[in-house]
Amino acid sequence: MKIISTISDLRRELAAFRSRGERIGLVPTMGALHEGHLTLVRRSLAQTDRTVVSIFVNPKQFGPGEDFARYPRNLKADSELLSASGADIVFAPEVDEMYPAGFSLSVTVAGVSNGMEGARRPGHFTGVATVVTRLFCLVLPDAAFFGEKDGQQLAVIQRLATDLGLPLTIVPVPTVREADGLALSSRNLYLSPGEREKAPHLYRSLLTGAELFAKGCREASEILVAVRASLENEPSFRLDALDLVDLETMEPLTLLDRPAMLAMAAFLGKTRLIDNVRLR
Amino acid sequence: MKIISTISDLRRELAAFRSRGERIGLVPTMGALHEGHLTLVRRSLAQTDRTVVSIFVNPKQFGPGEDFARYPRNLKADSELLSASGADIVFAPEVDEMYPAGFSLSVTVAGVSNGMEGARRPGHFTGVATVVTRLFCLVLPDAAFFGEKDGQQLAVIQRLATDLGLPLTIVPVPTVREADGLALSSRNLYLSPGEREKAPHLYRSLLTGAELFAKGCREASEILVAVRASLENEPSFRLDALDLVDLETMEPLTLLDRPAMLAMAAFLGKTRLIDNVRLR
Repeated sequence: MKIISTISDLRRELAAFRSRGERIGLVPTMGALHEGHLTLVRRSLAQTDRTVVSIFVNPKQFGPGEDFARYPRNLKADSELLSASGADIVFAPEVDEMYPAGFSLSVTVAGVSNGMEGARRPGHFTGVATVVTRLFCLVLPDAAFFGEKDGQQLAVIQRLATDLGLPLTIVPVPTVREADGLALSSRNLYLSPGEREKAPHLYRSLLTGAELFAKGCREASEILVAVRASLENEPSFRLDALDLVDLETMEPLTLLDRPAMLAMAAFLGKTRLIDNVRLR
Repeated sequence: MKIISTISDLRRELAAFRSRGERIGLVPTMGALHEGHLTLVRRSLAQTDRTVVSIFVNPKQFGPGEDFARYPRNLKADSELLSASGADIVFAPEVDEMYPAGFSLSVTVAGVSNGMEGARRPGHFTGVATVVTRLFCLVLPDAAFFGEKDGQQLAVIQRLATDLGLPLTIVPVPTVREADGLALSSRNLYLSPGEREKAPHLYRSLLTGAELFAKGCREASEILVAVRASLENEPSFRLDALDLVDLETMEPLTLLDRPAMLAMAAFLGKTRLIDNVRLR
């Protein structure tokens, strides 16, 4: 496995792969890797010939007052995990390699970015779409792998890839969870031991909604009331957002007559956790 | 030469070229082709193995009240010119092929787009950057050819290509002019015979500035005053804009200590003509 920090080195390695007709998989990450990321890597290893993992804590997708500065960074540990996993290339550029002086590009995906996290974190999805567009153009992967845990982000990237028109497959990968149900997230590192113990309650609340759906309930309001009530059983959580939306467009649904995503964001102490389940 | 209107047909043709290792040139146009466009095509034919010419009157780059509806369209005549020139593919999609239902992408290039035409035509360069990004991603050309006549557009596209990071060369091609100096433009078709006779005066006024520069003048204000005075010698023109800017960033200059562009937009009757000269 090679660890690369410049675009020119990246291009050289990719050209060598392509000259041999090898299919390239891309796993974009912000590092602080966990089993969720490694699952993406394994999917890429299974479906392509060469796997590039990017590690870049993208300043453009953090708002003022968000956790850009304290976001966990550990390239050494990440590289060891990736090397053991069988990845071919780690691309870990500095900010001024990714965004050189004069960088002026801004990519927006309207509609699907507008609600939910997009409304609560202004500029967040423009930051995501801009960095992902640049990564797609730099790597030109045959397939790119994203987790379902960041549900709206996945929908934004699927729309982005379609609209760009690159010859690229977006592969969504189901959320990986701890044994107790907590979705793996780099931000779980922020949790105290006491918070960590309570954290799975967020997912259990979402499952309350999924169970209602499985029993035949198709009224969004009924499901939302039940999930909210379930979350409130654990007073350490402070609900930030609860949405039931069309899986593709991220538009709110009142009647569940198409594939949907039930998504929640909640604070546990100072840590904001997000999770979702798909209803179809 | 093949005339193609769908993305799937385009991809099939391009894949055949690529499987033989052929280098692909792209000439994006809005049709109503003239010798300026054909010069771009000849440059592409000389520098690449296969030349794709796109013809698409892009609604996203026209503002309300601009000439989208009456912009000249003549695919038959354009195709005959291109066939005779030796182009390999004409890609002429309908609007709903280029922008299918649900299309949500918007690409902005800050800085270089903000002043001049960008300030006077809100949204224009976002429309240009969005369609050019999509064309670049669909065609993945090795080189793309743009005329210097649309001077700020060229600067926007050079910045765009750099920031996207695609493995692509932007080739600027000098403005092609009639014998009397008028820059070729599809919008010249709007001119009455009387207007056509007066039209070269715009370029002659720009040359007044270029001559001052050649004589050693480096004061932007002095050049701008002279060019304005020259244009006013032909009262049929109504000056819309006159700028002297850094050639790369499009920022206004007071002192000409780096490569610069002297650009003018002026109305002749109802027709808005633009032209520019480079000072270096």
